[in-house]
Amino acid sequence: MLLRNAWYIGAWADELGDKPLSRRICGDPVVLFRDSSGRAAALADRCCHRAAPLHLGKLVEAGIQCGYHGLVFDATGRCIAIPGQKLIPQDAQVRSYPTVERDQLVWLWMGDPSLADPTKIVDFPYHSDPAHWRNKHAVYPIKGNYMLMVDNLMDLTHLGYLHARTVGGNPGAHVAADMKTTRTPTGLKFTRWMRNSLPPPSYVKAAGFQGRVDRCQEFEFVAPNTILQWTGAADAGTATDNPQHDFRFQFRLFHGLTPETETSCFYFWSAANGYRQNDPEATEQLYREIAPTFLEDKEMVEAQQRRLDEFGEQDLVDIASDANRMHMRRMVERLIVGEQSAVAAK
Amino acid sequence: MLLRNAWYIGAWADELGDKPLSRRICGDPVVLFRDSSGRAAALADRCCHRAAPLHLGKLVEAGIQCGYHGLVFDATGRCIAIPGQKLIPQDAQVRSYPTVERDQLVWLWMGDPSLADPTKIVDFPYHSDPAHWRNKHAVYPIKGNYMLMVDNLMDLTHLGYLHARTVGGNPGAHVAADMKTTRTPTGLKFTRWMRNSLPPPSYVKAAGFQGRVDRCQEFEFVAPNTILQWTGAADAGTATDNPQHDFRFQFRLFHGLTPETETSCFYFWSAANGYRQNDPEATEQLYREIAPTFLEDKEMVEAQQRRLDEFGEQDLVDIASDANRMHMRRMVERLIVGEQSAVAAK
Amino acid sequence: MLLRNAWYIGAWADELGDKPLSRRICGDPVVLFRDSSGRAAALADRCCHRAAPLHLGKLVEAGIQCGYHGLVFDATGRCIAIPGQKLIPQDAQVRSYPTVERDQLVWLWMGDPSLADPTKIVDFPYHSDPAHWRNKHAVYPIKGNYMLMVDNLMDLTHLGYLHARTVGGNPGAHVAADMKTTRTPTGLKFTRWMRNSLPPPSYVKAAGFQGRVDRCQEFEFVAPNTILQWTGAADAGTATDNPQHDFRFQFRLFHGLTPETETSCFYFWSAANGYRQNDPEATEQLYREIAPTFLEDKEMVEAQQRRLDEFGEQDLVDIASDANRMHMRRMVERLIVGEQSAVAAK
Repeated sequence: MLLRNAWYIGAWADELGDKPLSRRICGDPVVLFRDSSGRAAALADRCCHRAAPLHLGKLVEAGIQCGYHGLVFDATGRCIAIPGQKLIPQDAQVRSYPTVERDQLVWLWMGDPSLADPTKIVDFPYHSDPAHWRNKHAVYPIKGNYMLMVDNLMDLTHLGYLHARTVGGNPGAHVAADMKTTRTPTGLKFTRWMRNSLPPPSYVKAAGFQGRVDRCQEFEFVAPNTILQWTGAADAGTATDNPQHDFRFQFRLFHGLTPETETSCFYFWSAANGYRQNDPEATEQLYREIAPTFLEDKEMVEAQQRRLDEFGEQDLVDIASDANRMHMRRMVERLIVGEQSAVAAK
Repeated sequence: MLLRNAWYIGAWADELGDKPLSRRICGDPVVLFRDSSGRAAALADRCCHRAAPLHLGKLVEAGIQCGYHGLVFDATGRCIAIPGQKLIPQDAQVRSYPTVERDQLVWLWMGDPSLADPTKIVDFPYHSDPAHWRNKHAVYPIKGNYMLMVDNLMDLTHLGYLHARTVGGNPGAHVAADMKTTRTPTGLKFTRWMRNSLPPPSYVKAAGFQGRVDRCQEFEFVAPNTILQWTGAADAGTATDNPQHDFRFQFRLFHGLTPETETSCFYFWSAANGYRQNDPEATEQLYREIAPTFLEDKEMVEAQQRRLDEFGEQDLVDIASDANRMHMRRMVERLIVGEQSAVAAK
Repeated sequence: MLLRNAWYIGAWADELGDKPLSRRICGDPVVLFRDSSGRAAALADRCCHRAAPLHLGKLVEAGIQCGYHGLVFDATGRCIAIPGQKLIPQDAQVRSYPTVERDQLVWLWMGDPSLADPTKIVDFPYHSDPAHWRNKHAVYPIKGNYMLMVDNLMDLTHLGYLHARTVGGNPGAHVAADMKTTRTPTGLKFTRWMRNSLPPPSYVKAAGFQGRVDRCQEFEFVAPNTILQWTGAADAGTATDNPQHDFRFQFRLFHGLTPETETSCFYFWSAANGYRQNDPEATEQLYREIAPTFLEDKEMVEAQQRRLDEFGEQDLVDIASDANRMHMRRMVERLIVGEQSAVAAK
């Protein structure tokens, strides 16, 4: 069961160019494009004439033209031209999805349009502040339910095992991290301190640490699909109470998970460096360090999904490090139950 | 639902060589071959012993020999040899399909053999008249219901959009073509005139037109699966009432659609040039112009099928240019209903 | 329906190295590995925490460590370490399968562990006697029910057709072979004599025969999944009553079939030469002769399975050479019925 009354990322803003983009979201085939004013739009990717996918068509002044028989639809999904006839039937239209472009992301609302409130979209101004947070992004298709990726980010003990060869390093340090979780109205937030620990090689490369460091991470989960991560380090013993202000080495990761189907998703992520801001190579280096890690997550989550497809959750056992993950799941389940009840009450 | 009491093309005559040919038709796996007298035959592609596909076997004097344990079947499907035993059980046989070879095509009857009437096979003598209609052919497998390809050929407004980069060119001209449709006992026929229009580049290349042309096309649909096309052009203003006789530039296309399954088909097509008949390069050129167009149709129809698989026909809207297509569909549906009633009445 | 109370081959002993091996057996995903003492073990390939496949983990001193969050399982499937917590819940465990390593093979018991009796494992000492039976082995995945491969080996008339281009040669000789079958408590045994026959080219190459030979084969089927084959030849007229003792040219093949699913299996096979025992090239040559033959079987059986998937056994006709095959099938069916009754009686 997927939550439909939610803002999901449909695309990175720079994915919408001069060709329509096809992407399945919450099970619906969607075509994304910009109208001639540059505004992002999202329509059902199926012409109302003969079911041809609209993404095979082309962008025209008035909207998108079907590539089969030339019908044209505007950004609201209304058919505004049918070659060879003047009268356009009332029912010649395709579904449109509320669309908002913000901070380099194109967000779609897949549920009841009357409930689409843009103020509920997660804020991430760092995407729009290259002077301080130069960044680079990607989108990975993953053959696993999007919640498996959220699970993954809610339990960082996996770093020491799954990412042992990349950013993980010392499993003990991750497991023993000093962890503090706060519940928020829209999700939860947790902070992990690994004081006086050996910096991973990538930190040394990025910031030139000479000895041990105080390392801190903050993760904020915003239901149902976004995780905002801040990570920083300072020479051991120099950490302050306000590390996001004071740490000389820090970066931010944005993680947005969009369900494609019940068993697949898109992982939109970015890395923004808050150090060496004038050095494009710092951004590239950070991206290069992180990208392979997420491919390790993808591989694991896809393997996990295959087992879940076959056996479901039977006989699974929760462990101590599942606490945040389970809280997150309960929140999303509550949202789904709420959505279902609202539908049933209509 | 597929019509079974109909002649469908199983293969081009030249596809039947020294090896058996395997092809699924109307859902049935069929093996096609020639017996030692050169006569085309079609059997169920499954040995009655252990279900091995017969197409993995080889052609022998008496028919086809299973490649697993050596059973031999003649062109009627009767088992005539079982290695190691003299007595051949009565029930040792496989289904055979009535087969007729005509005009370079091998036609199969997939329904009740007692109804198989070869006089019902569409005539296309141009395949057998290389002096006047030099031709070249192909077969394209398409992952779409065969009717989607018939639809495609019944509504030529798609030329201006789907084939914009190839033969289409000017969409307005196609949409505004002067069109006349006649119903026939076995289908329908329509003629399209585009007078005083710009010839497509391929026409100019083929026939050296210097200016505008009168362009004419005739399409005959013969239910349920054949479309016979004649196309010609003459210098603008010189068109007569008998263009098939008088036009110096003309060609014929044969389109035969054979259901493989409910959602896939084989597209047998040929192109025959009625100009520069002594010049093999004219035929090659015509074929080269047309082949990519049909691959565009294939791509679109396959995409359409995927949407139909998922959503069916719900919310689709008919438009003016669908008239011939809809008449064609009604004819085929009437044939299917007739076939079903006959079966029920038995 | 697969028999579960049986020993099936999970792997060749040399497949278990420093990485876990993943293989589906009787429908169950299994991970095979050696514990730190070198003992082979087999567990359900799904961590009891979050369903991650264990084969993506790594081997550690105490057993196998999940690659996602680091849980460790010993060879009995008990979880013995959970990072970040001391108490290990009782139900933190995965299924283990009784495992026995013998004669280069790792055998698994997929059914009720209390019935797993290692004395029931087929003996094949030739794998462990390289001085007399130098050998080489392989495992082929086959997309067909394992019984189709047993069928194949129970009716050797197929050699003359399916293997005509490899070891088959003369179909008549195979069909007319002098054949004697004996039923055994665990299966059946048959001997085939082809006296005064032309040796296949591979025999000549291996043993330098100058003229005709007396050729003999013995096949023993041990239900439900093993076939032990001895093959030999001597110069025509010199055959004795004890060919396994006297023939100067002889080899043994081991055939073990393990169900992967109802419609796929693993074919574990080896070839051991009982001639030129000091010459490694003799073993290689024998292996090279046989390997392509088994790929022909694989191709045929996979094609057969596709037809059976679609049409089942309907309209199939038994022939004379099916006698051993049918006896074998009845034996296995009896075992399955017995297993089902025992389960029902519980």
